[in-house]
Amino acid sequence: MKKYKIPEATINRLTVYSRCLEQEEIKGIETISSAEIARKIGVTPAQVRKDLAYFGEFGTRGVGYNVKDLKKHIMKILGLNSKWNVAIIGAGNLGSALFHYKGFQERGFYVAAIFDNNPEKIGKKMGDKVILDFRQDINNIIKELRISLAIVAVPADSAQEVVDKLVNAGIKGIVNFAPRSLSVPSDVILRRVDLAAQLEILTFNLQSKSQIYGK
Amino acid sequence: MKKYKIPEATINRLTVYSRCLEQEEIKGIETISSAEIARKIGVTPAQVRKDLAYFGEFGTRGVGYNVKDLKKHIMKILGLNSKWNVAIIGAGNLGSALFHYKGFQERGFYVAAIFDNNPEKIGKKMGDKVILDFRQDINNIIKELRISLAIVAVPADSAQEVVDKLVNAGIKGIVNFAPRSLSVPSDVILRRVDLAAQLEILTFNLQSKSQIYGK
Repeated sequence: MKKYKIPEATINRLTVYSRCLEQEEIKGIETISSAEIARKIGVTPAQVRKDLAYFGEFGTRGVGYNVKDLKKHIMKILGLNSKWNVAIIGAGNLGSALFHYKGFQERGFYVAAIFDNNPEKIGKKMGDKVILDFRQDINNIIKELRISLAIVAVPADSAQEVVDKLVNAGIKGIVNFAPRSLSVPSDVILRRVDLAAQLEILTFNLQSKSQIYGK
Repeated sequence: MKKYKIPEATINRLTVYSRCLEQEEIKGIETISSAEIARKIGVTPAQVRKDLAYFGEFGTRGVGYNVKDLKKHIMKILGLNSKWNVAIIGAGNLGSALFHYKGFQERGFYVAAIFDNNPEKIGKKMGDKVILDFRQDINNIIKELRISLAIVAVPADSAQEVVDKLVNAGIKGIVNFAPRSLSVPSDVILRRVDLAAQLEILTFNLQSKSQIYGK
């Protein structure tokens, strides 16, 4: 793998390419061109080729890509050739929704533990798991269950405290759903999911009548 | 506003710029340079200038941007100078979490109605709203409450049917949380929020040790 910086938009598109290729694989399609991938997901063929070129040479000129191989390559680039154990912090509505979300497991993410601070929730069951005590159990459980990723679904006011404790416990990758900007050390990757931003892409389009491109 | 196509990544960054400017405004900062914006959110200054240039000339060379004015401009570009009424379809865990999500209202999105198909849920209260019957009420309520956006938080198997009914009722902008690709007519904008994709950006970084840039 080349060592220079990869645009985040490229990584975002890789996740979309891999889903597209998966659907083709299910349909029994063996080869696909960059133009076909591009058309299916709404980007230019040049963009597809440029994104893939960051990671080496794929495909055969005039023939296209082998669907199965390219999917496997992209999954490997994304780190999805191995399974990842995930902890969810916060057993409220959002935490519960994420716990039951079907889209994680099919991409190799296994929700290994769910935590809360509320004594009324701790000890209760959620699906096949018991809700654990965040303050008391987080360090041990993360080591014991080899959890490397955490999803933060707590109220905005407690999010920074929760993230600090996760960093302390050795977590290096965090997805934050709380509507607040949080700080982490430079060796930890924090992604904020801003649910309102999704609606803003819609309103931009609805009011401007401009067309946007890309995914 | 210029009429050519705007990259979606630019629109995504506009939502981030506006939040950054809002924080500066709260702190009482009056002017800001593209370099300062860039540093705060982790893109290059050239990217900031390029993104803004799609929409006209802002700021004064050597002085920077007026924080308040630029924020107002960007909010207008995003269509956030007016309020938007939103419907949530699905009163399960995810629908309930979205209903209570604090981040919508502060950006001008008002959840005006929540719908479900389940007779056990219809008629029950959620916050200050009564859960409405999707099949029976959707058309009338959308007209009556002037709802222009919908959030789909239903199981994957019913998502296409729900989206078809929303399109029929005149909705032009939809955010889909169900882990399935759906089709809509070309005059309707559909965004899929793929929660697993957020984790994949983390795993890419954790396993490759490459650095990505951009937000």
